[in-house]
Amino acid sequence: MIAKKMKHMVANSSAIRAMFEEGNRLAGIYGAENVFDFSLGNPNVPAPEAVKKAIFELLEGSDPVVLHGYTNSNSGYADVREAVATSLNDRFGTSFEGKNIVMTVGAAGGLNVILKSLINPGDEVIVFAPYFGEYRSYTSNYDGVLVEISPDTDTFQPKLNEFEQKITPKTKAVIVNTPNNPTGVVYSEETIQKMAAIMEAKQKEYGTEIYLISDEPYRELVYDGVEVPYLTKYYANTVVGYSYSKSLSLPGERIGYLVIPDEVADSEDLRSAANVATRILGFVNAPTLQQKVVAKCLNEKTDISYYDRNRETLYAGLRDCGFECIKPEGAFYLFVKSPVEDEKAFCEAGKKYNILMVPGSSFACPGYVRLAYCVSYETIVNALPKFKELAKEYF
Amino acid sequence: MIAKKMKHMVANSSAIRAMFEEGNRLAGIYGAENVFDFSLGNPNVPAPEAVKKAIFELLEGSDPVVLHGYTNSNSGYADVREAVATSLNDRFGTSFEGKNIVMTVGAAGGLNVILKSLINPGDEVIVFAPYFGEYRSYTSNYDGVLVEISPDTDTFQPKLNEFEQKITPKTKAVIVNTPNNPTGVVYSEETIQKMAAIMEAKQKEYGTEIYLISDEPYRELVYDGVEVPYLTKYYANTVVGYSYSKSLSLPGERIGYLVIPDEVADSEDLRSAANVATRILGFVNAPTLQQKVVAKCLNEKTDISYYDRNRETLYAGLRDCGFECIKPEGAFYLFVKSPVEDEKAFCEAGKKYNILMVPGSSFACPGYVRLAYCVSYETIVNALPKFKELAKEYF
Repeated sequence: MIAKKMKHMVANSSAIRAMFEEGNRLAGIYGAENVFDFSLGNPNVPAPEAVKKAIFELLEGSDPVVLHGYTNSNSGYADVREAVATSLNDRFGTSFEGKNIVMTVGAAGGLNVILKSLINPGDEVIVFAPYFGEYRSYTSNYDGVLVEISPDTDTFQPKLNEFEQKITPKTKAVIVNTPNNPTGVVYSEETIQKMAAIMEAKQKEYGTEIYLISDEPYRELVYDGVEVPYLTKYYANTVVGYSYSKSLSLPGERIGYLVIPDEVADSEDLRSAANVATRILGFVNAPTLQQKVVAKCLNEKTDISYYDRNRETLYAGLRDCGFECIKPEGAFYLFVKSPVEDEKAFCEAGKKYNILMVPGSSFACPGYVRLAYCVSYETIVNALPKFKELAKEYF
Repeated sequence: MIAKKMKHMVANSSAIRAMFEEGNRLAGIYGAENVFDFSLGNPNVPAPEAVKKAIFELLEGSDPVVLHGYTNSNSGYADVREAVATSLNDRFGTSFEGKNIVMTVGAAGGLNVILKSLINPGDEVIVFAPYFGEYRSYTSNYDGVLVEISPDTDTFQPKLNEFEQKITPKTKAVIVNTPNNPTGVVYSEETIQKMAAIMEAKQKEYGTEIYLISDEPYRELVYDGVEVPYLTKYYANTVVGYSYSKSLSLPGERIGYLVIPDEVADSEDLRSAANVATRILGFVNAPTLQQKVVAKCLNEKTDISYYDRNRETLYAGLRDCGFECIKPEGAFYLFVKSPVEDEKAFCEAGKKYNILMVPGSSFACPGYVRLAYCVSYETIVNALPKFKELAKEYF
């Protein structure tokens, strides 16, 4: 008797649960330290000490009625929104005000809020494979139609020719995710400029507005001094979705924000719609204590060097084994070419060595597997001999 | 360019914002202490001291990677779900297990999760006027059709004859809210038994399943020793939505749960669907720190005597003025009969005395106004002479 739309999703999610249970089963047999679970994007670097300090200060120094109360606006505390805007302006030379910020229940909450605000049934939402599989569900929540651009497996930058061809008068939004899950690739400034030019030309051609939604939970997780372009500066109709899940290691606390700049078409209406959507989707407001916490920790960042060491070690180790992989510049994922076409068979083979990986099909990019290296360094060091054994089956 | 469905909602929400801004405007002119804002259901009794203590203990004694991390299941921490189930069993003689509990982003999040899990486009959801206006939006989110039962203004118990007539083969869910917002009425055990019998008979007649959704944010806020029946014991297809917003004064923190008992039709599928819905609606999981906090505060409760004094004082004072009102047994609202048919005109008249009230039309019950008495005692004491002046315009 559950909703028809949910039936398929429940079946799919059973597959993910099955993998999770497989991990638990293996841990039960071999011990957790002998299971190499690269399947989950759950950061294992602790939140900065400043987060704890901020919570203590807030509890000692605030009126609990205000600290834990509904915010006057569903978009969040006015002072928090101001602080976020100012911090963005300082870092990126933008000119946002508090009104341009909507505090959200993580980036996932933010994406749902903006899609609810924008999408009419049948509107098209373009995504670039490989992409975070949840975009499909989020788009479906509002009866939008997901349009995939096939992957460029040489660079994992967006295929711009295909992008240009697939924009139609029904294209309402384009979602980009850079640094990217699952590849770790950062879209270059040149890519962004070309994308912006394509969208501007298409907007003119069709007389439509095409909103670029930049999903940025990994913005702060970059290596080798790479710059991640701030997209509102390249394309007027840009909305940014951000999360503190990775930058402050607070994924369970569900705290992030949307930026809806003045330059966006119908900005005021869109901000009002986002405010209402936050309420009626049942978020009501982003968790209040965590709103105040992040406002106190705007200059804090999780320990990137930890992930960087994992990245270098795992990347070098896998290359040594003979695996092919683009070196990630950001996030905490490696997207490895499966040595056989059917990457699900490769994932199955990995399980013999207690190695858990996610098939690229989950990201609309079969033939590859995703390894999340937000694990302990020991897990990586101990997994590498197992990868070597696994590699011997193929090379 | 915002979504068509949102346009009407944005317009409506401007009216609420207008009232909020009116309150600020009046406070600016007359001083906040001279504005009698009874429009908001934001508790002003602080969270119990145990909440603060729990947060300190958790921050000192937990691994932050776990405390702030994603939960393994989107339905929440296994130990928290077990603790909630045990606490319910102890209090209500039920026999829930952890698997029957889904931790949610407040009751609003929980209602969206269960409606997403259940409703196909065109399915009917029955509500009893007066009802919390958000039920309309939540139902619309999933393209359900809201079916209203007209109010019984003598008792504000559900009109059962009309209920029976309006159940159709398309009826998928019935939402009840007891203690009730906006009336403060608690549905009697007799009412619940009759409702259950009607739904059971209709299920048989149509060969359908009709889910009773009990929205219970006010369960703990009852006076004069009144008992609130636990609905799963009266009707098998009952799902409970709970929130700690009022019982622990944590409305901004967004923490609550759903109970999906084994007795519910397709219980396992529905629990899986709720787990998936929690993820794909963008909640991902209920805020993790607050999950752990409420598990440590299951026997704590906000200071009800504070609300009770407000209730007695405001109720007696308004009756003295000549206003008609049913005495509430729960929640923190009085639902007062407007002395003129057009209650919006009455609300306007109240503003002359800096009294802010919500028109009953917002709850599908025109001719009445809602006063939220979760304000300071002083506000009530100081407002009563103003109500006396207001009353003189009518009586």
